[in-house]
Amino acid sequence: MDVTRVEVERAAERIAGYVRRTPVIEAEPGVFLKLEYLQHAGSFKPRGAFNRILTAREAGVPPASGVIAASGGNHGLAVAYAARTLGVRAEIFVPEVTAPVKVAGLRELGAEVNQTGAVYSDAFAASLKRAAETGALDVHAYDQPEVVAGQGTLGLELREQIPGLDTVLIAVGGGGLVAGVAAALGDTAEVVAVEPERIPTLAHALTAGRPVDVEVGGVAADALGATRLGSIAHRLLAEERVARVRSVLVSDEEITEARRELWRSFRIAVEPAGAAAYAALLAGGRRPGERVAVVLCGANTDPADLVVRGE
Amino acid sequence: MDVTRVEVERAAERIAGYVRRTPVIEAEPGVFLKLEYLQHAGSFKPRGAFNRILTAREAGVPPASGVIAASGGNHGLAVAYAARTLGVRAEIFVPEVTAPVKVAGLRELGAEVNQTGAVYSDAFAASLKRAAETGALDVHAYDQPEVVAGQGTLGLELREQIPGLDTVLIAVGGGGLVAGVAAALGDTAEVVAVEPERIPTLAHALTAGRPVDVEVGGVAADALGATRLGSIAHRLLAEERVARVRSVLVSDEEITEARRELWRSFRIAVEPAGAAAYAALLAGGRRPGERVAVVLCGANTDPADLVVRGE
Repeated sequence: MDVTRVEVERAAERIAGYVRRTPVIEAEPGVFLKLEYLQHAGSFKPRGAFNRILTAREAGVPPASGVIAASGGNHGLAVAYAARTLGVRAEIFVPEVTAPVKVAGLRELGAEVNQTGAVYSDAFAASLKRAAETGALDVHAYDQPEVVAGQGTLGLELREQIPGLDTVLIAVGGGGLVAGVAAALGDTAEVVAVEPERIPTLAHALTAGRPVDVEVGGVAADALGATRLGSIAHRLLAEERVARVRSVLVSDEEITEARRELWRSFRIAVEPAGAAAYAALLAGGRRPGERVAVVLCGANTDPADLVVRGE
Repeated sequence: MDVTRVEVERAAERIAGYVRRTPVIEAEPGVFLKLEYLQHAGSFKPRGAFNRILTAREAGVPPASGVIAASGGNHGLAVAYAARTLGVRAEIFVPEVTAPVKVAGLRELGAEVNQTGAVYSDAFAASLKRAAETGALDVHAYDQPEVVAGQGTLGLELREQIPGLDTVLIAVGGGGLVAGVAAALGDTAEVVAVEPERIPTLAHALTAGRPVDVEVGGVAADALGATRLGSIAHRLLAEERVARVRSVLVSDEEITEARRELWRSFRIAVEPAGAAAYAALLAGGRRPGERVAVVLCGANTDPADLVVRGE
């Protein structure tokens, strides 16, 4: 299965009723905020998780042993949520260092949590081994066609919600969302792929001509901390060039300030990754008359630091 | 000027372009959340403030000496915001005990802040005296026809956004919003007027047959803390009965839990007053097939207590 606009449209039919069609508000004339943080489980990730699981079910291989994922963050929450909704078992693998509050959040959604290994890649390897043993369906955080197609359904909504859309700003981690949206939009809009300066997986892949490992750090590492761009994202964005894609980097300071500004002006509380695209808008501006969508992609955050006392 | 649906429609034309048309999301089949906390200045209040000021301007009496209001809360922020947008001066009167962070918030919006008197009624009296001296336009928090008509524009949006709407749940303080929405909806939907048990201005007015003073306390007092129902709200809701209105009380515990649930399930951070209507839905449920709108009316809150650690 390749990820084309047709695949994204099929995904949209498949997951309708399971995910929220999140609203858009016009923040100022021509600037539209896509409130995807209102999605189930607090980020866009259930789109891909539902599409992966429902595709398997349609193909006649319902995951009898349930589903498996490796993630202590948004992806883990999304897979746990989707599994609970669909009545299948979820096993989520996380590294031993994962914060207790994250483990508790996964368990609250009914998932079985396995804390294994020192770092994420250990937990990921353990999850694949376990899936091979049990026959459970592994749901990757970004590098499976069904996952990318599922995330792309957000792009179809943007096309419907914003007539005359010129540009979409999206944060990039492993590239599942940006690749899916690019497939959905094709040449109808420019896609601005926004990355923290400290996690430039796409920027470095474009320079190197292939996905390469980057060092991961900074305020958005919990949600955009993939060490390299996914192979599907690379194929769609760099090789097939399914859409006009521009790579932009933002600093941690710009992300933090954008997050505060979203709270100040809109009472929107997002995580740093969810504010990265807005940071790029604030830094880069836009052309006269340009119609821009800014995807606010997640809000799994502690909002305690949003009020700057005495400000 | 009386407050009829026609007046609300005129208000909508007048304030279009100055206020946000806030989105609605379908939380579950038949339950719609009106995200009015995304409004400018963090609550529905700018609707009424803009309508009051723009009506005066249309009538040929532009407020040369600016506008005046008494409020350290949502109303004060809204008047300051509207005045700044329209390029007029704003003087906001607050009691001496008002928290420095609230005074700073008003000044950040360009308002001149006068701290006068021990309690709100002192500040209110001082604001009227000052308005009489300077000729500034006083903008009441809820008991002026232009203010009520402005708040009612939210009801027009609900009618357009939710076909087949049966019921609207709205929090009540002085009654400006609920009265305006009732005028906008007429007999097309039932209006459930939700009050904290500790501030039952409408419930007591309905019992007494006239607005009466109530004691004010509890978690929502900062935004719903009017000591008695406004006379316009009483006339529309109790005497003219412009809509089917049902009075419902919720406890502080129910409000606090509803506020936490909005964060857990939707990553929506509202103030206690903004969660009161949702508390009533959680407590009272709904009839099979009933289509309900829940107005989330404000988010001027410190979100620090939304994450229950170790939950």
